[in-house]
Amino acid sequence: MQRNVVNVAVIGMGTVGTGVVKVLINNQENIARKVGANIKIKKILDKNSERVLPKIGELNLDKDILTNDLKNIIDDQDIQVVVETIGGIEPAKSIISQVLEAGKSVVTANKDLIASHGKELFDVAKKEHVDLFFEASVAGGIPIIQSLKESLAGNRIRQIVGIVNGTTNYILTKMTAEGKDFEDVLKEAQELGYAEADPTSDVGGYDAARKMAILASIAFNSRITDSEVYVEGITNISGLDIAYAKELGYVIKLVGITKEENNEVEVRVHPAMIPVEHPLSAVNDAFNAVFVEGDAVGKTMFYGRGAGELPTASAVVGDIIAAVRNIQYNSRGRLGCTCLEKKRVKPIGEVKAKFYLRMMAKDRPGVLASIAAVLGNQNVSIATVVQKRTDEQGRAELVFITHLVEEQNLRDAISIIKGLSTIEKIENIIRVVDDI
Amino acid sequence: MQRNVVNVAVIGMGTVGTGVVKVLINNQENIARKVGANIKIKKILDKNSERVLPKIGELNLDKDILTNDLKNIIDDQDIQVVVETIGGIEPAKSIISQVLEAGKSVVTANKDLIASHGKELFDVAKKEHVDLFFEASVAGGIPIIQSLKESLAGNRIRQIVGIVNGTTNYILTKMTAEGKDFEDVLKEAQELGYAEADPTSDVGGYDAARKMAILASIAFNSRITDSEVYVEGITNISGLDIAYAKELGYVIKLVGITKEENNEVEVRVHPAMIPVEHPLSAVNDAFNAVFVEGDAVGKTMFYGRGAGELPTASAVVGDIIAAVRNIQYNSRGRLGCTCLEKKRVKPIGEVKAKFYLRMMAKDRPGVLASIAAVLGNQNVSIATVVQKRTDEQGRAELVFITHLVEEQNLRDAISIIKGLSTIEKIENIIRVVDDI
Repeated sequence: MQRNVVNVAVIGMGTVGTGVVKVLINNQENIARKVGANIKIKKILDKNSERVLPKIGELNLDKDILTNDLKNIIDDQDIQVVVETIGGIEPAKSIISQVLEAGKSVVTANKDLIASHGKELFDVAKKEHVDLFFEASVAGGIPIIQSLKESLAGNRIRQIVGIVNGTTNYILTKMTAEGKDFEDVLKEAQELGYAEADPTSDVGGYDAARKMAILASIAFNSRITDSEVYVEGITNISGLDIAYAKELGYVIKLVGITKEENNEVEVRVHPAMIPVEHPLSAVNDAFNAVFVEGDAVGKTMFYGRGAGELPTASAVVGDIIAAVRNIQYNSRGRLGCTCLEKKRVKPIGEVKAKFYLRMMAKDRPGVLASIAAVLGNQNVSIATVVQKRTDEQGRAELVFITHLVEEQNLRDAISIIKGLSTIEKIENIIRVVDDI
Repeated sequence: MQRNVVNVAVIGMGTVGTGVVKVLINNQENIARKVGANIKIKKILDKNSERVLPKIGELNLDKDILTNDLKNIIDDQDIQVVVETIGGIEPAKSIISQVLEAGKSVVTANKDLIASHGKELFDVAKKEHVDLFFEASVAGGIPIIQSLKESLAGNRIRQIVGIVNGTTNYILTKMTAEGKDFEDVLKEAQELGYAEADPTSDVGGYDAARKMAILASIAFNSRITDSEVYVEGITNISGLDIAYAKELGYVIKLVGITKEENNEVEVRVHPAMIPVEHPLSAVNDAFNAVFVEGDAVGKTMFYGRGAGELPTASAVVGDIIAAVRNIQYNSRGRLGCTCLEKKRVKPIGEVKAKFYLRMMAKDRPGVLASIAAVLGNQNVSIATVVQKRTDEQGRAELVFITHLVEEQNLRDAISIIKGLSTIEKIENIIRVVDDI
């Protein structure tokens, strides 16, 4: 059968780039039949030809397709789709801009870039009538972005709750299953390659924040950047909190949450206690999941691998296929940026949540009453209070669960409680998320 | 802002049709912004104007939009998208054909029709260069069809395992949680409206079979009709089987399974024991879930409500939006039928599975050896055997779990075992699905 050929270039032959090339080669005929065009890898750009040449050999590609000059891609009129898998802000940003300006569609897995500088790039794509797709930037192989933009587009999204960072989910799963402490599991995860040598971006919640900025932007049609996401990481979660959560019927996960109410958006990443019977609580190891609640569809969840060579490549190749179909049907730009409004992002103080508070107090009559009074004065209503244990120094460990409360009120109460002479230490404060 | 108007007609104002109208009205402005066009309901066709007029009033629609003559839709050049939500084969089939032939795109929730007569209709849609979308035909609001056709299109799908019938999942969930028997829970489900007065289509597995035929066709790019799906329902599942499954670490679910191997497809619906730690085992009540394994993406799962007015409408409206975008970009037919091959469907005898066998035997020396010998002779290898109990009549209850075996071998062995003088009854045979 005579088929069109659509030429593709891949920029960045690291883990994801290599995965993309593998999938395009391994499933070539299968993809070609579905799309009605042969997708051909015409150029691969990578600065490190020493690292890349052996890979190109293994994949039986002609070594002439390797280049280290962007001009060879920009100026090649036959290349219509360019995949960017180098990551980070620069030079990715200027590369993508130049490629779009040359009238080529772009597929990227770059969450950092989309979450911080998405608008500029989407504006260029729109002006040039080309596609800029980024399914792989959130939750790896899970088709959440297209689902939000198309299949679920009839819904008013109420909230999205995502487990969108595999490293922290792996660490919390191990801590929960094996009763180990954070530092020990982090070390194991680093040895196994599940965590980076510098784990800040993952364990600090920043990686998840970028993904939530992207999901919130799509869900609520309003540009939200990563700097607008409130972030707390998992470094303060202890084995004790996990054990107490379990007793109370919860599992601790690092979640991203975004909601819209009265045309205002809230978006935050933090550890949370999730009810053990909720499907999110069963998302273990390095798996990701995105729970989406819409006014029509109700509660849905999308589950899969959020990272890795082939799962991420699956999403990139899905986007390449969409871009190629748009080229075939001359409908580039069909699924463009939908951030059509600028909604206010609520500061964290205005966000409502339930809280688990764990503190050490002197084991004396009246202590509980004094804490309860402070909470009450700040409009923090208590759902549960448990005295967990008394230690050798005669200190009592108290655990409170609050009702729904505006965060600023909780913070004000905590400042006052910290100053009480009977309070030794606020051990931890973790949000309880049960409205899902 | 001056926007295009795209006119839509809805045929069939039952539960789903009403839901579609509600979502289009309630989220009108929201959808219009995303799509860049106002979607206007221009006609509603329903034979039963007495039932429909009050609904139209409640929705503040002009009663003139109601018609009982298809010609008023076919001949209206301004109507570009038609929603069919009457269900069943006829008259839905000839209505859809006529609408497509009039050059209008069609969105349907009609699984019976797509699973049995899909090819004819897709052929017409292709010829007329219009869209025929059917996301709502499988698993209600869960965006599984678009995900398979686009985001996951780079994958070679290994297998799909779906819980795609809410009624049976509700019944099995109740049986599992409350230890009740099938008949009692079915009665409850009927009283609550979760099961039809004639429940055959659900509890017999036929509804699930239609959905699996559709999923298999898309996953493996080969037309598979509902008559090619092997089907067993849940009417033989007893509380005892559920209890034993639990002891062995399994949960019993009605699943649809489809796989491809060596260019041959297997597709079947039957009760199965699923490992309790697998996310499918936690899909409870009337929820649906579709587990998809692809060579690149690995293991993914899509979860949500598989039926109901608004969840189903969510999928239909998603399809309307896609159809409208294709009209806006003049790219109708962009995501057409991809059943490009005709792969052989394996007869059930050739399909490999593991089996749980429960039987009553005389409690005598040598009984186990005689059964084991028959199984061994038919190449059925045993993984586990447990003598569960001895009843008052001195009969022993035996439970076997086999290794992976070709079904015909198992069936041959069972015929012989049934003839053994020491065997009173084969109580149940349930497949064990743990390669997921």
